[in-house]
Amino acid sequence: MTYNELFEQVKKKKSFLCVGLDSDIKKLPQHLMGAEDPVYEFNKAIVDATADVAIAYKPNIAFYESNGVSGWITLEKTVKYIKSKYPEIFLIADAKRGDIGNTSEMYARAFLETMEFDSITVAPYMGEDSVTPFLKYEGKWVILLALTSNKGAFDFQFFEENGVKLYERVLRKSQEWGNDQNMMYVVGATKAEMLSGIREIVPNHFLLVPGVGAQGGSLEEVAKYGMNSHCGLIVNSSRGIIFADKTENFAVRAREEAVKLQQQMAELLAAKGVI
Amino acid sequence: MTYNELFEQVKKKKSFLCVGLDSDIKKLPQHLMGAEDPVYEFNKAIVDATADVAIAYKPNIAFYESNGVSGWITLEKTVKYIKSKYPEIFLIADAKRGDIGNTSEMYARAFLETMEFDSITVAPYMGEDSVTPFLKYEGKWVILLALTSNKGAFDFQFFEENGVKLYERVLRKSQEWGNDQNMMYVVGATKAEMLSGIREIVPNHFLLVPGVGAQGGSLEEVAKYGMNSHCGLIVNSSRGIIFADKTENFAVRAREEAVKLQQQMAELLAAKGVI
Repeated sequence: MTYNELFEQVKKKKSFLCVGLDSDIKKLPQHLMGAEDPVYEFNKAIVDATADVAIAYKPNIAFYESNGVSGWITLEKTVKYIKSKYPEIFLIADAKRGDIGNTSEMYARAFLETMEFDSITVAPYMGEDSVTPFLKYEGKWVILLALTSNKGAFDFQFFEENGVKLYERVLRKSQEWGNDQNMMYVVGATKAEMLSGIREIVPNHFLLVPGVGAQGGSLEEVAKYGMNSHCGLIVNSSRGIIFADKTENFAVRAREEAVKLQQQMAELLAAKGVI
Repeated sequence: MTYNELFEQVKKKKSFLCVGLDSDIKKLPQHLMGAEDPVYEFNKAIVDATADVAIAYKPNIAFYESNGVSGWITLEKTVKYIKSKYPEIFLIADAKRGDIGNTSEMYARAFLETMEFDSITVAPYMGEDSVTPFLKYEGKWVILLALTSNKGAFDFQFFEENGVKLYERVLRKSQEWGNDQNMMYVVGATKAEMLSGIREIVPNHFLLVPGVGAQGGSLEEVAKYGMNSHCGLIVNSSRGIIFADKTENFAVRAREEAVKLQQQMAELLAAKGVI
């Protein structure tokens, strides 16, 4: 998917919402547990209920791997379902992979070739040759961790050399490997005020912003400091949408929460003159 | 597995060899390709041929994930085979995972509970809450990336604040989370001369050392700078052993290469007075 195709979707749906499919089998509505593949049934219902207000879905790979082989089957089925029924949707493998070159090539093959994800989140610690194998796929994206939403972000990401923090170094250095047409960055909503500084380094890149909702980040703050003329934001919400309700009404309630966010997003996009 | 059980194995086998099961299906001996699960047959033969001279096996998870569901099945079967036939062997999931707390918990469940790995490699970029969920399993180990063997290691791991490099910061900070009984570090053999400095920070920890062989690291240098009184080293070789030969003779040749390394290791252990 190209930058422009993604932006067209933002304009059409008046949304920059990503729904995180952190579909923990232990938290599913009880009535689904009799199904042959409860997580798949859950994902399908969530996707069908939200696809007109979301521009992206982000399966959190850990939640599938933790179920072993059957989890991997669910993941593959979920990806196929979304890609066939909603081909315009941007699909993110939230995998946070990264290894030496020949191994990163294998991870790239797993997510960008064997499965039809449009993008994958990648950890930067091992540097250039751990990231570039993911950039070899035309029309696919690397979403590199820069400043994450969790408390542990402060342990290393703010490490500072000559006034430059590690996450800033990651933003600058990685621009030698990719550009705003094939690379995005993860920037946590819980650190929204740092988005102004980040926008000075990467004015045009799309940013994947987790941490709104359950983790406490504010959508208004994210838009205030992070939105650019092409929106430039994909804001993720997981638990706040998919586990809004655990009865047979779960998909209806998930839609309500997604629409609520989309409506706020439409206002913010209009206020910034993006749409 | 405990520190002492691992050390007992080192003494008994006079070895600190880990065989990396980077079993790329595209590189297997041709005659195996007719089997129902060629990678599994390959792994079994490699393990049976080397288990008396190796103390650990390290499936590189990327090589299994890249085959999708069938790769995941192969991985589970391989783990079960090794654990049932060679229960003394230390099993490393080379996965380089790391995510926010509730997600790292899922990865921990996948590798340390659903599958019976003894340990998992973890990337430090996201800090404490991305690492500690892996430390909650009694008798299991985190192997944290510190100084990796690849070229890209120089991009961020040598970033320096007040004379402290990032990888040194990782070594120091992570000792607040775990200790030498449940945590090891990845230190690449290609940077063996830095092992002296690393030993000043973590004198007792086991270090997992990749990069000997195909990547150019020297076993003698690693032992010279990195070995402690309890050995403290697990040196990995992957391609140099498992792909030494691609005919029907592959397991015999793999054994020869493994024995060659084990014999060098026995000499180095004796020279340092460890055995």
